[in-house]
Amino acid sequence: MRLKVSRKAHFNAGHRLYRKDWSDEKNREVFGKCSNPNYHGHNYDLTVSVIGEVDPETGFVIDLKILKDLIVREVEEHFDHKNLNIEVPEFKSLNPTVENIAVVIYNRLKPFLEQYELEIKLYETPRNFVTYNGA
Amino acid sequence: MRLKVSRKAHFNAGHRLYRKDWSDEKNREVFGKCSNPNYHGHNYDLTVSVIGEVDPETGFVIDLKILKDLIVREVEEHFDHKNLNIEVPEFKSLNPTVENIAVVIYNRLKPFLEQYELEIKLYETPRNFVTYNGA
Amino acid sequence: MRLKVSRKAHFNAGHRLYRKDWSDEKNREVFGKCSNPNYHGHNYDLTVSVIGEVDPETGFVIDLKILKDLIVREVEEHFDHKNLNIEVPEFKSLNPTVENIAVVIYNRLKPFLEQYELEIKLYETPRNFVTYNGA
Amino acid sequence: MRLKVSRKAHFNAGHRLYRKDWSDEKNREVFGKCSNPNYHGHNYDLTVSVIGEVDPETGFVIDLKILKDLIVREVEEHFDHKNLNIEVPEFKSLNPTVENIAVVIYNRLKPFLEQYELEIKLYETPRNFVTYNGA
Amino acid sequence: MRLKVSRKAHFNAGHRLYRKDWSDEKNREVFGKCSNPNYHGHNYDLTVSVIGEVDPETGFVIDLKILKDLIVREVEEHFDHKNLNIEVPEFKSLNPTVENIAVVIYNRLKPFLEQYELEIKLYETPRNFVTYNGA
Amino acid sequence: MRLKVSRKAHFNAGHRLYRKDWSDEKNREVFGKCSNPNYHGHNYDLTVSVIGEVDPETGFVIDLKILKDLIVREVEEHFDHKNLNIEVPEFKSLNPTVENIAVVIYNRLKPFLEQYELEIKLYETPRNFVTYNGA
Repeated sequence: MRLKVSRKAHFNAGHRLYRKDWSDEKNREVFGKCSNPNYHGHNYDLTVSVIGEVDPETGFVIDLKILKDLIVREVEEHFDHKNLNIEVPEFKSLNPTVENIAVVIYNRLKPFLEQYELEIKLYETPRNFVTYNGA
Repeated sequence: MRLKVSRKAHFNAGHRLYRKDWSDEKNREVFGKCSNPNYHGHNYDLTVSVIGEVDPETGFVIDLKILKDLIVREVEEHFDHKNLNIEVPEFKSLNPTVENIAVVIYNRLKPFLEQYELEIKLYETPRNFVTYNGA
Repeated sequence: MRLKVSRKAHFNAGHRLYRKDWSDEKNREVFGKCSNPNYHGHNYDLTVSVIGEVDPETGFVIDLKILKDLIVREVEEHFDHKNLNIEVPEFKSLNPTVENIAVVIYNRLKPFLEQYELEIKLYETPRNFVTYNGA
Repeated sequence: MRLKVSRKAHFNAGHRLYRKDWSDEKNREVFGKCSNPNYHGHNYDLTVSVIGEVDPETGFVIDLKILKDLIVREVEEHFDHKNLNIEVPEFKSLNPTVENIAVVIYNRLKPFLEQYELEIKLYETPRNFVTYNGA
Repeated sequence: MRLKVSRKAHFNAGHRLYRKDWSDEKNREVFGKCSNPNYHGHNYDLTVSVIGEVDPETGFVIDLKILKDLIVREVEEHFDHKNLNIEVPEFKSLNPTVENIAVVIYNRLKPFLEQYELEIKLYETPRNFVTYNGA
Repeated sequence: MRLKVSRKAHFNAGHRLYRKDWSDEKNREVFGKCSNPNYHGHNYDLTVSVIGEVDPETGFVIDLKILKDLIVREVEEHFDHKNLNIEVPEFKSLNPTVENIAVVIYNRLKPFLEQYELEIKLYETPRNFVTYNGA
């Protein structure tokens, strides 16, 4: 039996949509008010899902305590109350769109979850969100 | 990298479940109180998802401002505060079940989103909803 | 010890904002698209709260089973899947705004809950709601 | 046209994570506080989804009234306000993890929904949930 | 300036509605399936609100980190994954209705928050909840 | 008849908790990671409530379209995608805690709503929020 097991998490961060190799004018033209040079921010709601076989001994696909601790260490402590553009190394030369943040989270978690399929759902606002499964 | 990008929207509308070629009795027998001839209505909650490649230049699958404006024009302005049976041409001879409304929304949006896979999730009530991806 | 005990409920209904003694033009001018003569509708989310003393014998302010059944009988069966303007007697000459619907619900429930303070919270959409306590 | 139609439901139950063939110490070591011998419990939120063709005559994939009644009979009446370990036969020798509960629900509903694909989503807490589709 | 500052928390627990001085039959008659002798349980959602003056130096009514830690220590660690009837001393001779649990939480927190008005909102299920402010 | 009418709104903004007359060290000591000099941010969820008499002619306490437009103009356009510390004049010398933001919103809206009681509820995160009514 193969199930998807999901855990919700949360972090708050500041960012601006911005490419260093473009002028502020070009950034504003393409990214609008999301490119405000003084930064704005979001409450990011995250769901991390792992897909795998149920262990017949425990009845678990994964111990959710282990998944929770992994998310705290690799995502929440890395992103929470940070300025993504300035303080998170992955975005030094990568535009912190919600798509790119989801891919970065996937890439941070995947090495610790190699035996599972992994899916990341990330809400930037209550109305806008993305889903990424490594495809 | 291929992601699903989702945007939530909302409209309120009136309807009745009803086939013109059936009697009111037969409509009531099959559709129950949902066939009330005086109409009732719902707050429809909609999630539109597009699946595509991340543009490496912008970090976007799609500019969400464009997706939002498209949903306003093709869905909200077309359905909001309307009587679906009487005022929305697609339901002149199509029963406005939540399944059929989702298919109509898919068909209205798809021509503007040809380069993406498209998925429609539509809530008729907080407990009842459908998902359609053109299959 | 005095507590507020709350129970959520739900109904779907059709309506238009409309005064019979005004022309359709005046109704449209004042009530906008909410006055569409073909009717639209909503999923109404309701919270009924009663305030009273905890019974030291049972530990209840009110048996929630009794409150639930009262709401089903006096509110859900009376409003659900109805056209408020046409089929609910209280709105024969009363405009079914969310304010007036809340007052009607209060007045229907109060006679069965005389020993309590009563408060009605009614959502017409996820973003618009009213609260009424008989004041 | 092939759609997924979903219906939400809810039940409250008591349980402990526990294998009879392990000692209480081993159970506690593996399952932590979830193995409390005095039992704890949860409000389980359930979404049952069926995937099938839209019937061109009715515009339904399935009559949601029928799906609702099936969930009440096979899930809510079977689990609600029960101690899963003691009172639900399927868990006499099966550990009631959220994964196993989802599989049991799938197996209880599937015989009545043979013509559809079936998917079960089960929340044990607002932050932890699983999805099972018989794979 | 006087504001209400609120913090949400969460715990899972088992219980039965039960008076020791009544027979099981009388308990079942009054409390129905909530009196199941094998226990069931809930995910309790809690909002703790304190009302007080804004400190002009910090702009805080209360440091939310302090309020969060107090709730963890006095509520979550005291109730989470416990059987309320057996393992929580306050319910040794008090029926663990949602009303009484809210009062117990109020009484546990109040000594640490003497300079504020305090309000407890406690959800037993998504549809049933109580509010208590010491009145 | 006197009712409370409520409207929800939303804005995203960046900020840091910070007093100019304190050192960065003292700011960090008192405000912790919320004082990160590079800024972070939030999705602020806002509910604006007005309390007043129902107009017997319209059945409205207030035309919600007017309330919605007022919130857009005075709150959303003023705060959305802004850095509160740098770009919103009210916070030039006022620490942008959630308490102070709620008071600023109250003070911006009150002059346009003099005939009503006004209440502001502001969520900084899904778990932390404040309520202010001018007291």
